[in-house]
Amino acid sequence: MAEATVNNGVNVEALLAAREALKSAPEAAKFKWRATVKWVNGTHSRSTVEGFYGLGGEQKHKTTFSFDADHPEVFAAADQAATPVEIVLAGLASCLTAGVAAVAQARKVQLRSVSATLEAGMDVRGILGMDEDVRNGFDGIKVTYKIDADASPADIKAIVAQSQKRSAVYDIITNPTNVTVEVS
Amino acid sequence: MAEATVNNGVNVEALLAAREALKSAPEAAKFKWRATVKWVNGTHSRSTVEGFYGLGGEQKHKTTFSFDADHPEVFAAADQAATPVEIVLAGLASCLTAGVAAVAQARKVQLRSVSATLEAGMDVRGILGMDEDVRNGFDGIKVTYKIDADASPADIKAIVAQSQKRSAVYDIITNPTNVTVEVS
Repeated sequence: MAEATVNNGVNVEALLAAREALKSAPEAAKFKWRATVKWVNGTHSRSTVEGFYGLGGEQKHKTTFSFDADHPEVFAAADQAATPVEIVLAGLASCLTAGVAAVAQARKVQLRSVSATLEAGMDVRGILGMDEDVRNGFDGIKVTYKIDADASPADIKAIVAQSQKRSAVYDIITNPTNVTVEVS
Repeated sequence: MAEATVNNGVNVEALLAAREALKSAPEAAKFKWRATVKWVNGTHSRSTVEGFYGLGGEQKHKTTFSFDADHPEVFAAADQAATPVEIVLAGLASCLTAGVAAVAQARKVQLRSVSATLEAGMDVRGILGMDEDVRNGFDGIKVTYKIDADASPADIKAIVAQSQKRSAVYDIITNPTNVTVEVS
């Protein structure tokens, strides 16, 4: 069977086993994701990701991951790194793309290439405090995938739709999430 | 005057001048932020940020910025990079921190150090499709700043509150944003 050779690099069997295991241990499904940030200078900062809580215990990444951010020169900044809102787009892009690979694997569809472009509108009069009726954030995001795979266009669209349906970052952006900010 | 020596590396004068200029040219305030993503293997992808549209024309970053993402080993993945939801936390952390530096500069408060920890809860039964009542995204985010600055605790709290009020990423996460996902 050709199906047996489908390999997108996603261990779907392990994910299905995890789902079974969590049915009888819902507490293990409660994760805490973490990041720390340090101000560098001006609008330049460095965020670091090292570990998280999940499956009932502390988990460590294999390595520490760090993300620099800055504002661009058109905002009179040094453009040392991507802008925070672009980093959010990278989060959305990667979440949906991981989902495409996972769903394709579950549906026994071999992917050859997956890419996408993301574009998000923003009226900067919001963040500049010029008009209270202009929101600070994006006025919308458009994601356009280009996928080469052993499947019909309709099946490919269905894979993307399912990824969207289960995406954590898609949910975070499209629905309200409570954020509390404190000074210790 | 001691105030004259306050330097957090943010050019507030240029930002105020930009605000004045945009009053008579609101079209120039319409930005388009962009990212592209390419699937690498499994849940591993690479997002790239190169340019954006704003001030009435195409803008290029000084360099191309890229962000790898992957899923962790507890999700049977290779943990080659941070998880997409952690990248979103980095986006929020950096947006609020840039705002702290900018607001402090505008208020003539010298910052000595700024850091924060972020923690976001998530019940992974959502993304695993185990329970339709469990959302895919975070159930909330807590950001805790630690700031050393030439200001009273009350003034420092007010700086953080103003950064939150004008933050693009805080707005994107706390309010709903429309996302359309298509296959070309």
